[in-house]
Amino acid sequence: MRSFLTGLECRGCCTAVAADRLVGPCPTCGQALLASYDLGGVRGATSPKDWSGRPTGLWRYRELLPVQDAAHIVSLGELATPILRLVPKDPSTGAELWGKDDGRLPTGSFKARGMAVAVSRALELGAASLFVPSAGNAALALSAYAARARVPARVYLPTDTSNMIQEACRTYGAQVVTVPGSISDAGRLAREKEVGRGSFDLSTLREPYRVEGKKTMALEIFDQMGPEDLPDVIVYPTGGGTGIVGMFKGFNELLELGWIDRVPRLMSVQSEGCAPLIRALRNDEPRIVPWDRPWTVAPGLLVPAPFSSERVLEAIRGSKGNGVTVTDDQILCAMGDLARDHGLSVSPEAAAAYAGLGALFAHQMIRSSERVLVYFTGTGLPFRVSELSRDLRSAGPGRPGDR
Amino acid sequence: MRSFLTGLECRGCCTAVAADRLVGPCPTCGQALLASYDLGGVRGATSPKDWSGRPTGLWRYRELLPVQDAAHIVSLGELATPILRLVPKDPSTGAELWGKDDGRLPTGSFKARGMAVAVSRALELGAASLFVPSAGNAALALSAYAARARVPARVYLPTDTSNMIQEACRTYGAQVVTVPGSISDAGRLAREKEVGRGSFDLSTLREPYRVEGKKTMALEIFDQMGPEDLPDVIVYPTGGGTGIVGMFKGFNELLELGWIDRVPRLMSVQSEGCAPLIRALRNDEPRIVPWDRPWTVAPGLLVPAPFSSERVLEAIRGSKGNGVTVTDDQILCAMGDLARDHGLSVSPEAAAAYAGLGALFAHQMIRSSERVLVYFTGTGLPFRVSELSRDLRSAGPGRPGDR
Repeated sequence: MRSFLTGLECRGCCTAVAADRLVGPCPTCGQALLASYDLGGVRGATSPKDWSGRPTGLWRYRELLPVQDAAHIVSLGELATPILRLVPKDPSTGAELWGKDDGRLPTGSFKARGMAVAVSRALELGAASLFVPSAGNAALALSAYAARARVPARVYLPTDTSNMIQEACRTYGAQVVTVPGSISDAGRLAREKEVGRGSFDLSTLREPYRVEGKKTMALEIFDQMGPEDLPDVIVYPTGGGTGIVGMFKGFNELLELGWIDRVPRLMSVQSEGCAPLIRALRNDEPRIVPWDRPWTVAPGLLVPAPFSSERVLEAIRGSKGNGVTVTDDQILCAMGDLARDHGLSVSPEAAAAYAGLGALFAHQMIRSSERVLVYFTGTGLPFRVSELSRDLRSAGPGRPGDR
Repeated sequence: MRSFLTGLECRGCCTAVAADRLVGPCPTCGQALLASYDLGGVRGATSPKDWSGRPTGLWRYRELLPVQDAAHIVSLGELATPILRLVPKDPSTGAELWGKDDGRLPTGSFKARGMAVAVSRALELGAASLFVPSAGNAALALSAYAARARVPARVYLPTDTSNMIQEACRTYGAQVVTVPGSISDAGRLAREKEVGRGSFDLSTLREPYRVEGKKTMALEIFDQMGPEDLPDVIVYPTGGGTGIVGMFKGFNELLELGWIDRVPRLMSVQSEGCAPLIRALRNDEPRIVPWDRPWTVAPGLLVPAPFSSERVLEAIRGSKGNGVTVTDDQILCAMGDLARDHGLSVSPEAAAAYAGLGALFAHQMIRSSERVLVYFTGTGLPFRVSELSRDLRSAGPGRPGDR
């Protein structure tokens, strides 16, 4: 079992970069670099049947992941998360609904996928300390994986990130820096402050390997459902968009390997208080325009200017997907509905994806005969709907008219 | 794949009871009833090798579980939880340490195991509504599984149960009744109030099937580590004790099946603010004496009068195990240590087990050459050490001198 990583490539300007050292964005054009694999080699070395004999979880897909030496894997037990059938109480459509519960990963969110792979690879390539700007979940995940690996980590969080998350990061031993504004502001400050510290930047899409971790969402859905029963549509809550880029990349590698014959349509859901990607989709633009006065009750969706949005939009369009916005009230209602109707407690971001189903059916972006998988990116355990609702009432005026 | 359940038995007075209807405690002596299986039949029908071809999680062990018809299984995706190596920062002993992270189950705790099985079986046998007294985690689990099954649930919680848990239960659609005092008081009131409502009591050890769900802890440890590499010792935080009874029962069934040749020693850890089981172990008594003025920062350990404590003490002694107490300060320190040193965020109860290692080594209940598994029963995600610490300072005076 070995990695078939061959190099890194910028899909913007086609620059190729060696994968044998720590790198950030494309040195030529500044966009995201993505990893390439020798897929012929992968096909010769393994198969889905072969995978099924290995322990479950994301390291099952070692050939398609960048870590070279298994001894460098930093793991907190990244299990294959369950895919559950969702039977609507009032079956308004004939669609077959499934939910994948990534709240069951270490630190309670899908961010563990990206960080498990990116931290392992960064340390393999010699990083001595790590930092990330985050709306919360990525900071939690980095803090935990850095603690597990015993390397220093710094996390840059918007000032109004919940105290619970700030304290949890500190408890893991990470240094917490709070920054007024959004995650984009936190990212700018982080990169300024970290200059000359010899630290490695794990910002979304600014290094190539968090995407590889997120890619395992696609590999795992394929592995669990099989090529025949793949969903027609995956509904995904979108902040920075690494997940979308990762899933599209994963499904395309499976396609090239000849193991599947179609890619599920990727449907993005954003909050109407911060929807730069959906606006770009509607306006048929190749990249986003930063969102003015962003606010939403779902911190993970509060990304007003996703980096390398070209790649995210390409992935959505390339999969023949699309996207919708939901209101914050719909997000809170969906949290309640999922708990009451299905026994599932999910994060506001995950609830946003579920809330988006209504508009997706209404706009016929999903047909009633299709198999639909809603991606639940995080657990609801640390959240209280009543508190989120209070936040929403008090922050209401900051909501933007611009869209 | 079918269940080999044959009946129920009271280990106190040897009364046998049929397993084909809803039952509570032993009709003769009032102690816990435990399920029996046709182990010869199990041996003929399946094997550990056979299990390894099935999806992971507790339903892999169908032959040794009570649910008759797979269509009655109520599931939220009960995966096999990861077992992680714990390398001490300062290796003061030569022991080989492992941790099993049940915080990754639905609703964030090991209570999901018991409730998944007990709710499925209660509904299979015709229960129309369900109730439970709980310190918190069992209520969360019942609320979620009842929501998933769409049956009404009522949970009886001590008044000072965290608002977060109370609200989460309500969000799942359960009815929450708060009761002044401890879980024992909540249990008394629950049984009074529920008379004549046609509802089924899921209190710890007062029905036979939560133990069967907990038994899967033993089956899963065996399945994951193998017969050769079983831990010598399992360190387990103990409130009501169903987990200890379940694990001992599970290992003994494996022994009778001839699949293992020894049972790990079960070491119980309680808080010194509520340690009726440890006191009974020290005083060599067959059952507990209710604990006076109980208080601990770990709600799940706040069980002053565990029901059917004879069974719990029998299990600890039968495994050649023992137990220790820890202080609340040690519990809070252990939460920090586990996060900082191992990247693990666990509940106060789980941290108590880890905190107990010091005393267990000091009293030579564990030898330095042994393989030790610490059972992490719940996630730390919804907890803040600073808040628990504040609770501890303000509740301090209520701590008992009686032990």
